[in-house]
Amino acid sequence: MRVNHALAAMPAEYLFARVQERVALCQQLDPQNPVLRLGIGDVTLPLGAHIAQAFAQAAAGMGTPEGFRGYAPAEGYPFLKEAIRAHEYAARGVDLDADDIFISSGAKEDAAALERLFGPDARIAVTDPVYPVYADANAMAGRLGAFRGGRWERLHYLPCTGENGFEPPLPEEPVDVIYLCFPNNPTGTALGYAALKRFVDYAREHRALIVFDAAYRAFITDEAVPRSIYQVEGAQEVAIECCSFSKFAGFTGVRCGWTVVPGRLLGRDDSGNTHSVQQLWRRLLHSTRNGVSFSVQRAALAVFDPEGQKECREAVAYYMGNARLLLEEARACGLAAHGGVNAPYVWARTPDGMDSWQFFEFLLERARVAVTPGAGFGPGGEGYFRLSAFNTPDNTRQACRRIRAALR
Amino acid sequence: MRVNHALAAMPAEYLFARVQERVALCQQLDPQNPVLRLGIGDVTLPLGAHIAQAFAQAAAGMGTPEGFRGYAPAEGYPFLKEAIRAHEYAARGVDLDADDIFISSGAKEDAAALERLFGPDARIAVTDPVYPVYADANAMAGRLGAFRGGRWERLHYLPCTGENGFEPPLPEEPVDVIYLCFPNNPTGTALGYAALKRFVDYAREHRALIVFDAAYRAFITDEAVPRSIYQVEGAQEVAIECCSFSKFAGFTGVRCGWTVVPGRLLGRDDSGNTHSVQQLWRRLLHSTRNGVSFSVQRAALAVFDPEGQKECREAVAYYMGNARLLLEEARACGLAAHGGVNAPYVWARTPDGMDSWQFFEFLLERARVAVTPGAGFGPGGEGYFRLSAFNTPDNTRQACRRIRAALR
Repeated sequence: MRVNHALAAMPAEYLFARVQERVALCQQLDPQNPVLRLGIGDVTLPLGAHIAQAFAQAAAGMGTPEGFRGYAPAEGYPFLKEAIRAHEYAARGVDLDADDIFISSGAKEDAAALERLFGPDARIAVTDPVYPVYADANAMAGRLGAFRGGRWERLHYLPCTGENGFEPPLPEEPVDVIYLCFPNNPTGTALGYAALKRFVDYAREHRALIVFDAAYRAFITDEAVPRSIYQVEGAQEVAIECCSFSKFAGFTGVRCGWTVVPGRLLGRDDSGNTHSVQQLWRRLLHSTRNGVSFSVQRAALAVFDPEGQKECREAVAYYMGNARLLLEEARACGLAAHGGVNAPYVWARTPDGMDSWQFFEFLLERARVAVTPGAGFGPGGEGYFRLSAFNTPDNTRQACRRIRAALR
Repeated sequence: MRVNHALAAMPAEYLFARVQERVALCQQLDPQNPVLRLGIGDVTLPLGAHIAQAFAQAAAGMGTPEGFRGYAPAEGYPFLKEAIRAHEYAARGVDLDADDIFISSGAKEDAAALERLFGPDARIAVTDPVYPVYADANAMAGRLGAFRGGRWERLHYLPCTGENGFEPPLPEEPVDVIYLCFPNNPTGTALGYAALKRFVDYAREHRALIVFDAAYRAFITDEAVPRSIYQVEGAQEVAIECCSFSKFAGFTGVRCGWTVVPGRLLGRDDSGNTHSVQQLWRRLLHSTRNGVSFSVQRAALAVFDPEGQKECREAVAYYMGNARLLLEEARACGLAAHGGVNAPYVWARTPDGMDSWQFFEFLLERARVAVTPGAGFGPGGEGYFRLSAFNTPDNTRQACRRIRAALR
């Protein structure tokens, strides 16, 4: 069988798989001496009691004639779509229809699937550094050309550096799709209204599409930061938004997210005919998925109950306490550190001119602390590393002490 | 944004969505008079008590520090992979490694994603008629050309007709990928060893890949029918197999399946280099998915406990009782009917030269029974309809009486 050349030509290892493998090996060589993980962005708190109860109740109900549900609607259950519409959008002044909202098994799955909406020659832009899924999904589809010297030949990188405060510039050449992830993974940067509006205006003017990944928006503490791109006027005509229950509700192992594809969003085909992107997405979902587990959707619904909301607020506060600590400690170590205010990630420069992977190895060996090497997030991540707030305060404090000692 | 022309050019409606919409409208116009559904292949029995209990217990545990699990391995938990290896393969003499098995949210999701492994110009063959996902996924990827007169221009159809006993012929022209679904949806046909071996031999000789969808294998009653394509010698070098908990364990609304990509399966890239297809699939999963819900995988594990196995056997026997009834009744009505022995579907010719959709409308209006029009499964389905065994025996009997009366 002739394989997909673009897939076969990809760098062999996925960033987080490589980190995890390296950490596991290190742990194995010295099992008595635990490695503290500030690497992968997995949550550590259990589900809130109210949410877990709703989940278990729905799961138990599946064994009864009354509680059993077969195939879920491919687009998600109306009860969950409506709850998201009301709590996540209407409550913030964003007027969406429940049918603009599509439930999925998570933002990553959707972020990877959205490329099926684009023409084969679509020109893609991503901020640099950024979470790998946007580039990877397009690379596999053959849109990005070859991977040489850590860069995709045909990908448009929007550099986010210390100099521009990690706020991406507009594309210099015309592009069809711009992936934005804010609050950003990995830099922890959030964009204000004005910065987002520049992108929305650009997209309207150049008929570009914005894919806005808002998976971390529950961590925003700054009132001046929009929680949804649709809080910017005109965004419903140019933007798709992906969201997730993973981080704020502890759903990394439960699996639920949603994607908004507004009814007003139009695309053009090769013959110049306009198409409703929402209709295309619906067609794609009907043909390729069979809906999300009913019990999972019930658990997600419980997130919007007052008890569920309280549980999620407490979890967010818990992780953001860690983020503050990481930011302070990194700075106390003399590192140039960013983020950690509106996002659960701290982004810091490696010391002494070490590159990302060198510093990763240095910390793993000297401090037995795992971080994520910045270079894994794109060429602009070289010379940086990411610290994740998703651990216990105790482990976070201990890891900080170890890093401090290693850098002394 | 320039949209994916191939997606935009697809027939607007997904088969089952169209059927469901039509049935819902019919029901709405006369709410007192319920439509009996022998259409969509959704199960109706609740989960077995033992399986539901395991599911609920794992879900409740997610609210405790001991029971909580974050991101699952992208390939599935080792406990489930090992259980599948032992019960579904080793027990039938098939020697697989647990790492050949990849857990997913369902066979449809995987059947749709597998096309990402193939080169953009891969030549695709499907049996005709067949479940739409294989053609749809490749059509969206632009491999099948235009859809004209109910046929994809560049798709190789392997006609399954009454004349050949619904056993597909080998491709007449060279192809790269052959999708086989046996026991077949919709015809209910199962393939014996010899018939499967012809395909495996063909694939080995022509370096083709077989995607074997075995979602219905638990319904096989005939001992002479292989449950897995890997029971045929040499298949591990040429075949990927997709399976599902949906039908035999009642997981349509729970969502779990698995795909086998054997380590021995090799592909070639454009430069003639060989690649491990398993490695490509792993890379693809790591980049595009974040694993299946832990609680769902625990529920799936319980399927392999003796209590779980008993519950599944009972469910299968229950549905196969319906299948027998449907086959007998269809024949008693004078229809040419097939399947229903090794599969939960009966495939029958429409009477009086009606086409599929005409007969669908006829039964919906005259009998208030919903079936699935054969033409929705491909051009070879024209003039046939599918009856599904996934209803209660009462409803099935009542539906049969109504069909009989309508045809009198």
